[in-house]
Amino acid sequence: MNSLNEAMVIDFYELTMAYGYFKAGKKDQEVIFDLFFRKIPDRGGYAIFSGLHSIIKYIKNFRFNEEDIAYFESRGLFDEDFIDYLRDLRFTGDIYGFKEGSVVFPNEPLLTIKAPVIEAQLIETFLLLVVNHQSLIATKAARIKHAAGDRKILEMGARRAHGVSSSLYGTRSAYIGGIDATSNVVADQKFKIKALGTMAHSWIQMFESEYEAMKVYAETYPNDCTLLVDTYDTLKKGIPNAIKVIQEVLLPKGVDSFAIRIDSGDLTYLAKQARQMLDDAGLQQCQIVVSNSLDEFTIKELLNQGAPIDLFGVGERLITAKTDPVLGSVYKLAGICEDSQVTPKIKVSDNVEKITTPHYKKVYRIYSKDGKAEADLLTLYDEELNNDETLTIFDPNYTWKQKTFEDYTIKCMHEPIFKRGELVYDVPDIETVKAHANHEKDTLWDEVKRFEYPHKYYVDLSLKLWKIKDELLKKKG
Amino acid sequence: MNSLNEAMVIDFYELTMAYGYFKAGKKDQEVIFDLFFRKIPDRGGYAIFSGLHSIIKYIKNFRFNEEDIAYFESRGLFDEDFIDYLRDLRFTGDIYGFKEGSVVFPNEPLLTIKAPVIEAQLIETFLLLVVNHQSLIATKAARIKHAAGDRKILEMGARRAHGVSSSLYGTRSAYIGGIDATSNVVADQKFKIKALGTMAHSWIQMFESEYEAMKVYAETYPNDCTLLVDTYDTLKKGIPNAIKVIQEVLLPKGVDSFAIRIDSGDLTYLAKQARQMLDDAGLQQCQIVVSNSLDEFTIKELLNQGAPIDLFGVGERLITAKTDPVLGSVYKLAGICEDSQVTPKIKVSDNVEKITTPHYKKVYRIYSKDGKAEADLLTLYDEELNNDETLTIFDPNYTWKQKTFEDYTIKCMHEPIFKRGELVYDVPDIETVKAHANHEKDTLWDEVKRFEYPHKYYVDLSLKLWKIKDELLKKKG
Repeated sequence: MNSLNEAMVIDFYELTMAYGYFKAGKKDQEVIFDLFFRKIPDRGGYAIFSGLHSIIKYIKNFRFNEEDIAYFESRGLFDEDFIDYLRDLRFTGDIYGFKEGSVVFPNEPLLTIKAPVIEAQLIETFLLLVVNHQSLIATKAARIKHAAGDRKILEMGARRAHGVSSSLYGTRSAYIGGIDATSNVVADQKFKIKALGTMAHSWIQMFESEYEAMKVYAETYPNDCTLLVDTYDTLKKGIPNAIKVIQEVLLPKGVDSFAIRIDSGDLTYLAKQARQMLDDAGLQQCQIVVSNSLDEFTIKELLNQGAPIDLFGVGERLITAKTDPVLGSVYKLAGICEDSQVTPKIKVSDNVEKITTPHYKKVYRIYSKDGKAEADLLTLYDEELNNDETLTIFDPNYTWKQKTFEDYTIKCMHEPIFKRGELVYDVPDIETVKAHANHEKDTLWDEVKRFEYPHKYYVDLSLKLWKIKDELLKKKG
Repeated sequence: MNSLNEAMVIDFYELTMAYGYFKAGKKDQEVIFDLFFRKIPDRGGYAIFSGLHSIIKYIKNFRFNEEDIAYFESRGLFDEDFIDYLRDLRFTGDIYGFKEGSVVFPNEPLLTIKAPVIEAQLIETFLLLVVNHQSLIATKAARIKHAAGDRKILEMGARRAHGVSSSLYGTRSAYIGGIDATSNVVADQKFKIKALGTMAHSWIQMFESEYEAMKVYAETYPNDCTLLVDTYDTLKKGIPNAIKVIQEVLLPKGVDSFAIRIDSGDLTYLAKQARQMLDDAGLQQCQIVVSNSLDEFTIKELLNQGAPIDLFGVGERLITAKTDPVLGSVYKLAGICEDSQVTPKIKVSDNVEKITTPHYKKVYRIYSKDGKAEADLLTLYDEELNNDETLTIFDPNYTWKQKTFEDYTIKCMHEPIFKRGELVYDVPDIETVKAHANHEKDTLWDEVKRFEYPHKYYVDLSLKLWKIKDELLKKKG
C-alpha cells in the first residue's frame, strides 16, 4: 500500500463544504453530528460496534502533511488563507460513544461528535468507513459463532478480502465478534490473534503419494496436525491414508490430539462417514474440521442434520459479510451550538426511514432485574432520568405502543472518548473488548439473536426529545 | 493503518508448508502455480482483470524485515536455519499473465507462477487477495457503466468500503472498469482520478434557510455547482429554491453549466418532475444527478422507465460489489519441474467444478475477422499452434461440442511480467490501463455483456492439453 495519511480519507464534498464554511465566516461554528445506522445487515436483531480503536488512533494523528497541502493547492479551488488553516488543523472537539464491542441497534448514535463544523465535517468519511466495515464484520462473526454454539470457528478469509486493510481489520473485528482463531499472519503479528495453519492441496500434490505427503507433515508437526483429506478421493483415499498416518506416526509418539479437514463435497455426508471410519479405527479423539463457503446459515443446517463437526473454517462469507456486505451508517447534523444553547436540526425525507432524530443526545439502556437488555432510550444530553419506581417508554412512530418497566436498572451507554481534542478514554486491549462483546451478547434475549424475524429491540425517545422531533417534523425543518 | 509489510499478508499454512518443504529438502523444487477463478460474479459473462500494479510493487519489495523475523521466532515452531532462510528470501521466479484491464474468463490462468516452491507458496494469499478484490470491483464498474450507456458515473462509496485499501484500490479498479470520476480524495492524490464534490444535507441545514444555503454555495462555486434538493421537500422546496438560486446567482454570471442532485425518494418520478420544472423555468441545460443505492440493475430500470438523468452517483453497491461481493480466485499447483521436464499435477474433487487443469500453460484468444473475441484456448506452454486455415476447438467436458474457425486471428494473452525475479514488463500508467479495458470490452459480443443469461464464452483446451488432463483424471491424480 502506498504510504497514506488517513486524514486524507475524505470525500471531496467535505473539502468544498469546508472551504464554503471558511469563506462564509462559519469555521468556528460548533455543531453536533451523530453517526448511526438504519438497518441491521441480514435482517438481524442486533449489531456489534467495532472500529473505535482505529478512530482513536486516527483522531490523535489527524493532520495534513506537506504532500497533502500540495494536493490541495494543486486543485486550484482554495485560497491561501484556507490552505494555511488546513495546514494547522487538528481535531479540537468532543467525541462520545459506545464502548467497542457493545451491542448496538438502529437509529441510535454510535458516536456523537461536537466540534467546529469544518473539523466535524472532514472526519466524516473515515469515521463512517471504519465503523461500517468493522461493525459489519464483528456482527457477522457474532452470528456465525451463535450458529456454531460451542464449536470453534477459524477465520480464513484473507484471500477473498477487499484489500489488505479489509483482511487485517476484518480479522480483528471477527475476533471481537466471536471467532476463536485465524489463518491471518498479520492479525497475529499486529493484534496477537492466534494464527493457525495446516496444509493446502498443493502440499499433498507435491509428494509421490498422498500417504507420503501426510506422513511427512505429521512427522514435522506431530503436535499440531490436521490432515487435508479431499485432494483425490475423500472416502476411498484421503481418510484411509489419514488414519494410517495417525496410527503409524502420531499414536506411537503418544500424541492424542489431531484432526482431519474436509474442504469439498457434501460436508454432512462426508463428516458422518468420516466420523464412522475414524471411530471404527479407534480414533474417537480425532477431530473433524470442515470448510467450503460456510456462514451462519450453512453451519446451522449442517448441525441441524447432525454433522459431527468440531471446527468450522470460515472464509469469504465472513470476511466480506457476503450475504449482506453493507452496514450503512450515516453521519448527520443533529444540532448547532449557539450561545451555549443547542439548536436542534433535522433532515426530513420522502423516505420516512431517512428522517433523522435531532438534538444533542445520550443513549440509555434499560435492563430487567436479571440483567437482560429490554430497550434503549434516547434522551437530551442534559436530561435527568428520574429514578422513579416505574418508567414508561413509547414507540416514536406509534405512540400508543407503550411499555412500562418496574424493577429495572438503567445505564448510560455513551462514554466520553475525546474532550476538547484530548483522549479521555482508557483504551482497552483486544481481549477486554472481546470479553465486553461476549458479556453484551449475553444480555440479549435469544429472541433478539434469532436469524429469522428476530424480535425488534426497542429504541425509543424520551418524551422531551420526541416533542422536539415532532415539532420540527411538522414544520419540515 | 499500522505500518504493515505486505510480505506478511500470508495465511499461516503457507508458513507451515514452507517449513515442511524446507525440512523435507524440497526448498529449491521448482513448481508451477495457476491463479484463476471459477465463476463470474453476478452470473455475468466476463470479468475485468485488475490488480497487477499492486502485485508488481509487492513482488519487487518482497522481503521480511526484522519485526517479521521476530514474529517468526516468537511462534516457536521453526528452526534457526529456516529463519535465516526467510531473512534472505526474495522472489526469484517467473510470472506470466494477462495485462491489467484485460477481459478474462473462468478457468483460465490469469497469472502463472513458476518458482521455487516456498516462494511460490508464500505469495499465494497476497496475489489472491489483490486479484480477487480489484478484479471484482473493476468488473462491477464495467457492468454499471454498461447499464448507464453514455451517461456519466461518479463513484462515491468510500464510506461503505471494507477498510481504507478497499476504498483506495476499489476506486482505482472502478476507474479502470468504467467510472468517470470519484468523490475519493486519496484516489485523486495517489492515482490522479479526478475527485469531485458538492454538498451534504448538513450544508443545507447549517444555514437559516435552504435558499440561503444554496445561494452561498453557488456564490462560492459558480463554475462547479450541483445543488442538493432533497433535504426538506424535493418538489415543493428543494427544486424551486435551486431554480431561484440558478437564476439569481449563476445565470447573471454567465454560467451555463450546473446541476441538481436528488438523493432519496422515487428517483424516476422525481427526475421527471424535476426535468419538467427546470425546463419550464428555461433551464434545459441544468443537469440532473441522482444517487441512492444504485447499481447496474437499478440504473437499467431507471433508464427503461425514461428517467431523464445525466449522471449517476454510485456508492456502496459498487465499492462492495454488493449483489455478489466475492470473486473467488484460487491458486493451484499445476506442475512440478524436474530435469527441465514438467510433471503435470491435478486436484480432483467431489465437486466437479473444483477439478483443476494441469500443466504449464499459455492462453490464446481467437478473434473473428472483425475483431470480436470468439473463444480462449489453453495450450501447453511450448505448444505451437499451426497457422492453419481452419482451427477446430471443442468443449473440454462435452467433446462433441465443436467449433471450427476460418478467417480468424489468434493472439497469445499471457505477457511475461517477471523473469528470474526481475521485472520485465513495461508497467503502463492508469489511463493506458483504462484505455486497454475499454478496447477489450469493445471486442466482446453484446451477448456476452448481457446481464441476464449472457452467452457463455468458450474457454477450451488444446487437444494435447485435454489428453493430459483426461489421463490424470482417469487415474485420479
